[in-house]
Amino acid sequence: MVETNDAQLDRPLQPKDGTAGIERPKALLDSLPEDPRPLMTLSSRHVVSSRQFDRETLVQIFRLAAQYESTPALLHPPLAGKILISAFYEPSTRTRLSFESAWHRLGGDIMSITDPKSTGMAKGESLADIAEMFNNYGDVIVLRNNEGPAIYEMLDSLRIPIINAGNGIDEHPTQAMADVYTIMKWRPELARTDLPAGQRIRIGIIGVPSRMRTVRSLLLTLGCFAHAIEEVVILSREDDLFDEGQAQELAEAGLKVRVATDLDGELPSLDVVYINAIAWVGDTFEAMGMDMRLSAASPLKKGAIVLHPLARGEELSTDLDKTPHNWYFAQARGAVFIRMALLTCMVRRISEVMDVPDVGRG
Amino acid sequence: MVETNDAQLDRPLQPKDGTAGIERPKALLDSLPEDPRPLMTLSSRHVVSSRQFDRETLVQIFRLAAQYESTPALLHPPLAGKILISAFYEPSTRTRLSFESAWHRLGGDIMSITDPKSTGMAKGESLADIAEMFNNYGDVIVLRNNEGPAIYEMLDSLRIPIINAGNGIDEHPTQAMADVYTIMKWRPELARTDLPAGQRIRIGIIGVPSRMRTVRSLLLTLGCFAHAIEEVVILSREDDLFDEGQAQELAEAGLKVRVATDLDGELPSLDVVYINAIAWVGDTFEAMGMDMRLSAASPLKKGAIVLHPLARGEELSTDLDKTPHNWYFAQARGAVFIRMALLTCMVRRISEVMDVPDVGRG
Amino acid sequence: MVETNDAQLDRPLQPKDGTAGIERPKALLDSLPEDPRPLMTLSSRHVVSSRQFDRETLVQIFRLAAQYESTPALLHPPLAGKILISAFYEPSTRTRLSFESAWHRLGGDIMSITDPKSTGMAKGESLADIAEMFNNYGDVIVLRNNEGPAIYEMLDSLRIPIINAGNGIDEHPTQAMADVYTIMKWRPELARTDLPAGQRIRIGIIGVPSRMRTVRSLLLTLGCFAHAIEEVVILSREDDLFDEGQAQELAEAGLKVRVATDLDGELPSLDVVYINAIAWVGDTFEAMGMDMRLSAASPLKKGAIVLHPLARGEELSTDLDKTPHNWYFAQARGAVFIRMALLTCMVRRISEVMDVPDVGRG
Repeated sequence: MVETNDAQLDRPLQPKDGTAGIERPKALLDSLPEDPRPLMTLSSRHVVSSRQFDRETLVQIFRLAAQYESTPALLHPPLAGKILISAFYEPSTRTRLSFESAWHRLGGDIMSITDPKSTGMAKGESLADIAEMFNNYGDVIVLRNNEGPAIYEMLDSLRIPIINAGNGIDEHPTQAMADVYTIMKWRPELARTDLPAGQRIRIGIIGVPSRMRTVRSLLLTLGCFAHAIEEVVILSREDDLFDEGQAQELAEAGLKVRVATDLDGELPSLDVVYINAIAWVGDTFEAMGMDMRLSAASPLKKGAIVLHPLARGEELSTDLDKTPHNWYFAQARGAVFIRMALLTCMVRRISEVMDVPDVGRG
Repeated sequence: MVETNDAQLDRPLQPKDGTAGIERPKALLDSLPEDPRPLMTLSSRHVVSSRQFDRETLVQIFRLAAQYESTPALLHPPLAGKILISAFYEPSTRTRLSFESAWHRLGGDIMSITDPKSTGMAKGESLADIAEMFNNYGDVIVLRNNEGPAIYEMLDSLRIPIINAGNGIDEHPTQAMADVYTIMKWRPELARTDLPAGQRIRIGIIGVPSRMRTVRSLLLTLGCFAHAIEEVVILSREDDLFDEGQAQELAEAGLKVRVATDLDGELPSLDVVYINAIAWVGDTFEAMGMDMRLSAASPLKKGAIVLHPLARGEELSTDLDKTPHNWYFAQARGAVFIRMALLTCMVRRISEVMDVPDVGRG
Repeated sequence: MVETNDAQLDRPLQPKDGTAGIERPKALLDSLPEDPRPLMTLSSRHVVSSRQFDRETLVQIFRLAAQYESTPALLHPPLAGKILISAFYEPSTRTRLSFESAWHRLGGDIMSITDPKSTGMAKGESLADIAEMFNNYGDVIVLRNNEGPAIYEMLDSLRIPIINAGNGIDEHPTQAMADVYTIMKWRPELARTDLPAGQRIRIGIIGVPSRMRTVRSLLLTLGCFAHAIEEVVILSREDDLFDEGQAQELAEAGLKVRVATDLDGELPSLDVVYINAIAWVGDTFEAMGMDMRLSAASPLKKGAIVLHPLARGEELSTDLDKTPHNWYFAQARGAVFIRMALLTCMVRRISEVMDVPDVGRG
C-alpha cells in the first residue's frame, strides 16, 4: 500500500500560467505588425533545415504562435479534416506529443507510428516507397529518424509537406524556433531591426554544435537575429566543436561566435544561457558536457534566463525550477504554439486565422 | 486455407444488449434523484485513490453513468476540443481502450503512450519532469504504471488532473467504481440510505486484498455502502491477506469482513461473487487462488451475480457466460460509462450534460 | 552535417495526381449506374473472405470508391462519432494507415493496437474474450493476425462487424478489392456484363495461390469477373501452388487458370501483370519467386499495367516507377477509397452519401 497524503490530493490545481514567463506572448504579439506574406511562402513547403528561414518569416511565425498562445480555445479549428502522419522512428515522447497536441488543438486527426519494428521498414522497404505511401494517407508528415540523410532521401518522392523533427545529429528546426520564440517573448524588442546597440544580448550555449542537432539548428536560427546579438559563447571542453564550414556559415550570417571553457567565469555576463547535454549517436545517445552544470548556486546574471530543450539530466539542477531564471518550462510550452503556427501555414490554412492578401486575382 | 462456415458469416449480428443485465441502467437512473453538487467537487481534481470518494459522490457518478448508458448517442459531445494523454507504462489493452472509448464518445481527442521504451523515461527523465511535460500537452492524464508510488511523485508538478488506472499493487479506483456500478444496476435500492436490514447483501471476494489493486480499491468503495452490506467474505488460502491497517480501515468504515477458505460452502449464501486471480508484481503478474474456481457447476445462489475485472484465466469458466450469473460482461461494458461520467466532471463540463446551480454569483 | 540541396527544398510539391492512372475514377464512376441495394446487404456484416462477395456488390463498392476518389473533401463526414478499433497483431504500417486514413476521412475516431506485447493477449486472454471486449469499445474492428483461424474464432462473440485485414496465409479481401478496383479504373468496360469476347483481358499473377493471402483473395475476386477474363496465368516455379479444392473452386467460378514458368515468354501477351513475392509464415515472412522479376527491360505488352500489393522488394524494379506500366502506386492510393466505401456500408451510413430506397416501410 502506498502511503498517501490527503492534503496532496485535496489541494486545488495550480493555474496553468504559474510558470515564469508564459504570460508574455501578448506583449510579443502587440509589438509585432501582422504581415501574412512571408507565411504564405510556407504553403506546401517542406521544413527540413533552419537554413530555409529568414528573419521576416520567423518573426511572423512567432507572431502567429503568440496569437495562438494568447487565445484559450479556437472557435473554428482551422485544420478540421486534415490528417497528420506522426512518424517517430527514434524513441521520443516529448517532441511527438508536442506536435500531436499542436495538431489536435488545430482540429486535425492523427495517425502515429511509434515503433519502427511494427513498420514496413522491417520488410526492408525503401525510404522513397515509404514517402510514396505517406502521400496517399495524410496531409503532412512529421518525421524523426536517427539517420540524418533519411529525410532528404524521401523528398523527391513526396507530394505532401514533411517536417524534420530531428534527423540524427543534423537538425531540429522547430525546436530552434521554439528556443528563439522564448527569447522573443522575454524581450520582444529583439525582433525589431532598429534595436540600439546597447540593448544587444549575450547568449551562452553549453553544448556541441557539431554533434547536437538542437544546437546546430539554434545557431542557424540565431543567425537571422545577428543584429540583436552581441556575442554567442560556446561553452564546451569537447574537441571538434564545429563541422567543416559550420563556423564560417555563422560568421557570414553576422553572428560573433567565441568558444570558452570557464563556465562560472562567463555566466555573470550572459543574458541567455542555453544548455543541452544529449547528443544522438545512431539509435542511442551520449551525454556530454557533464562537467558543466547549472544550479541555483551558479553565478547567473540577474534577470538572465536559462533554456533547455529537455529532457534534462543532471546538467540542469531542479533547484533552478522555482527561480525566475527558469524559462525552460515556458520554452517547452511555447513549442506547441510554434508548431501550431507552422502547421497552419504548411497546409494552406492561414486564411482561416488571419486576413490574407488577395493573391493572383486581377 | 482456413475452413470457413458460410452460415457463420451470414448470420445477422446479435443486438448490442444481448448480455445479461445491461438493459438495467434506466432503472438505476430513475431511482436516483439528480444532484450535481457532489460532481462539481470533482472539477480539476485528481483521482488516485478510492479513499477520495464518499457515498454521495459515488451515487451521482453512477447516476450520470446510467444516463450515458441509457443514451445511444450524444448530440453535443461535451469534450470537443479536449485532449486526453493516455499513458500506459504497463501492458494493457482493456483498460486503455475502455478509457479511450469513453473519451472519444465524449468527443475528445487522444494521444497514447503504449510503449515505455519509446518514451523519455528511456532517457532517465524524472516523474516530475514528465508531469510538467504533460501539463503542456493535454487536459487530463490517464496513467497506468507498475510502480505504485509513481503517480504520487507526479502530483506536485501537475496542473492538469490525473486518473490512476492502476498503480502496481496499490489501487485502481475507476475499476472499483465500475464494479459497484454493476451491483447498483442489478439492485438499484442498494444506493438508498434507508435500505431495510433484510435487504442487505452478502458479497464474496475471491482474491487477495493486500496484493491485488482491484480488490483493494473495491473494498474501499464498498466501505461507502457499508449500510447495504451484511458481510464481505474474503475467499483465499494466501498468507498476509491484509496490509497493516487495511482491515482496520475497513472496519472503521463499517464493513464487516471475514476470511474463509471453503468456497463451495460459502457460495450458496452469497449474493455477489467477485473473482480475480491476477496480482501484478513489478512488470509481470502472478496468478493466485487458482485452487478457487467458478463454473456452471459451482453451487451459486439462485439470482446471485458473478463479477470479474477481466482479463480472466482458468479461474472463471466460460460455461458461466451463458448463465444469468454472468454480470462480468455487463461490468466491462459499464466501465466505459463510469469513465465517461468521471471524465466529464474532471474537465469542468458537467454543465454540458446537466443543469448545475449558479455557484459564486451574487 | 547532412549535405543539403537547396533546390530540392525549394521546388514546389508535385500535384497529387502526378501518378499514372489516378485521374481515372471519374470515368469509372460515370460508366456505372448507381444501385444502393447490394451495398445495403453489407450493413453490420463481417468482411472476412473474398468468397462473401458477388459481382453486383463489388461493382457498387467500386462505384462508391470512385465517387469518394473523385471528391476532394466530404462536407458532412458520414462517420462522425463512430469509433474504429484498429487491431494489428502482426507488423504493418501500410495496411494500418490505409484503413485509418479511410476512417479519418469519413470523420470517425480511432483506437489502435500496434504491439501484441502490450495487450491482454500477453495475459493469455482468449480470442472470444477479446471479441467480447471489442464489442464494448468500438463500432467496427479491423484485424490483422498472423494466425489464419483467429478471426473465425472471434465471430461468434462479436456484436460489431469485423474486417479481415490479413489472416496469416489465408485471405486479405480488401486488398483484392483494391486490386480489381484498379483494373476497373484502367478499363471501366470490364465491369459490364455485355463485354464483347474480343475485349477480354489476360492476367498474369507472379505469386503462389496457396501461400499468399493477397493472391488467394485476388483469385476469388477475379472469379466474380470471369466473363471479362480470357485467362489467368500463374507464374511460379514453386511446388504445391494450390491448396486442395482451390483450383476447382476457381474453375467452378468460370475462371480459366493456367500455370507457367517462362515469365518473359508470357509477358508480351498479358494485359495485367500482378506481382508479389512475400508470403507470411507465422510471425515472419518468406520471399519467394525471386527468380521472376519485373523491370523496365521486361518484355511488357504496350499498354499493359503492373500491379503489386506493396511493400516491394527486389522483384519489382524501381525503374518501372516512371513508366506508364506503373499502376501499383494508383493501386495503393485507391485502396483508401475502397476501404472508405466498404466502411461506410458496414456501419449503416450509406444513406449519408447516396439516396437509398425506403426499406421496410408500408
